[in-house]
Amino acid sequence: MQQTRGVFFLSDRTGITAETLGNMLLTQFDGVQFERFTLPFINSRQKAAEAVTRINAYARMAGRAKPLVFSTAVDDDVRVLLQAVDGVFIDFFDAFIARLEKTLGTRASHSIGLAHGINPGTYYRRIEAVNYALAHDDGVSMRNYGNADVILLAPSRCGKTPTCLYLGLQYGIYAANVPLTEEIFESGRLPPEVLAQKSKLYGLTTEAERLSEIRSERLPNSRYASVEQCRQEIYETDCIFRSLGIKALNTARMSVEEIATVILQDMGLKSLAR
Amino acid sequence: MQQTRGVFFLSDRTGITAETLGNMLLTQFDGVQFERFTLPFINSRQKAAEAVTRINAYARMAGRAKPLVFSTAVDDDVRVLLQAVDGVFIDFFDAFIARLEKTLGTRASHSIGLAHGINPGTYYRRIEAVNYALAHDDGVSMRNYGNADVILLAPSRCGKTPTCLYLGLQYGIYAANVPLTEEIFESGRLPPEVLAQKSKLYGLTTEAERLSEIRSERLPNSRYASVEQCRQEIYETDCIFRSLGIKALNTARMSVEEIATVILQDMGLKSLAR
Repeated sequence: MQQTRGVFFLSDRTGITAETLGNMLLTQFDGVQFERFTLPFINSRQKAAEAVTRINAYARMAGRAKPLVFSTAVDDDVRVLLQAVDGVFIDFFDAFIARLEKTLGTRASHSIGLAHGINPGTYYRRIEAVNYALAHDDGVSMRNYGNADVILLAPSRCGKTPTCLYLGLQYGIYAANVPLTEEIFESGRLPPEVLAQKSKLYGLTTEAERLSEIRSERLPNSRYASVEQCRQEIYETDCIFRSLGIKALNTARMSVEEIATVILQDMGLKSLAR
Repeated sequence: MQQTRGVFFLSDRTGITAETLGNMLLTQFDGVQFERFTLPFINSRQKAAEAVTRINAYARMAGRAKPLVFSTAVDDDVRVLLQAVDGVFIDFFDAFIARLEKTLGTRASHSIGLAHGINPGTYYRRIEAVNYALAHDDGVSMRNYGNADVILLAPSRCGKTPTCLYLGLQYGIYAANVPLTEEIFESGRLPPEVLAQKSKLYGLTTEAERLSEIRSERLPNSRYASVEQCRQEIYETDCIFRSLGIKALNTARMSVEEIATVILQDMGLKSLAR
């Protein structure tokens, strides 16, 4: 059996980029166990030296293979210090910046100033989009649907709420959602406020077994969580989507990020948070 | 003046990793205007061919410089097709995978199977964490604080809600939040349910001018949004944090991602969403 390999994600900001790209690469190595650490906000020589000390101490522990070290640090002084670490150093910045400088015919700033911190305009937009999602969650308020970029329709527990919040937080998209309830199934009609926004409607469906699993986490052994009830609701949901020509997505095996990305693409929406 | 340079982010998944790392590199080039496109879910030869056709059509438009093409595609067949694009192709997968294979002494799977889709355990955890954040937003319910990983305290509009949602969505962290209100300032005391969780408390502060700006977006020309009122609230907030020894963060120039990362680090919390 292979030993556990240490992995460090280093960044002068949050470390999210280093983690995301690093983990994408690591998922390619199925048989290896990794132990992960994120060291964010390495934005001075002192912090770089501390990070190196910490990683080297880890590397020296008996019998350890050299740790993998993924870095997105931008500052040249910081990078030079980090590169001296006793590990396999993978520099996401250094690997590409020279080629981009050549192509663009201009020198990169090599400073974290620009990548750092917030853009007030997009900050407001994202926060307002989250507030919009909260105010228009689960059909609570049907006012202001005119401001929505997209309105999600689905039975309970198909991922409407986290998807709307993600669309707001990540992309600044105004997303409302409306639950498909017994009342709607019985009448076969959507509320008029919803129907009035037909071009913004987008459906989420799933598989009965998966929905039943998720609902069982909340209300085990209930009718609500039974596979039969879930199957019936999904059937009626499909009927509504088909009869109204509403584009729909089966979310059974998708992460929130994937659902959000497909919605952006299908609805022709652009991220407003850049 | 330099012309606008086209940028394409290609991925067999959402494209978020390609966008994030690509944009980190592009922010280094201050003087260049970029026009960005994301082409997600390129998971077959046909979709790869379509992406190449689209990018080449863009590249051929009169007088355009070669577009920059950032890819995280993992499948070898797809990658070979994409690499033939008429642009500057930057392959975030290919650049590092051979070195990792050598270091780890094992071959990468080169298939999107493993990186794709959801891990049911972490999916539940993240969704439940979002539900927890919603149920414990703005001091609405003070029950179940025992389950919280962290409880944020701050005056209105310092970023409590989006930070709690982000902690849930991104990391599976259970985050509640409590607004610091006039009532708390007057009595100088936190509610007993909150005080009982002292080790989980974390404070957010900001700068008066910035808070006033944000509040003015909601209620322009109100006392609530005035710089004086904001300054007074921040002063009283600082007094509470200091007297109780609550760790606090000035969020004035920070993005939600940065605030969340600092909280994880300061509170010694680990992402539970892997």
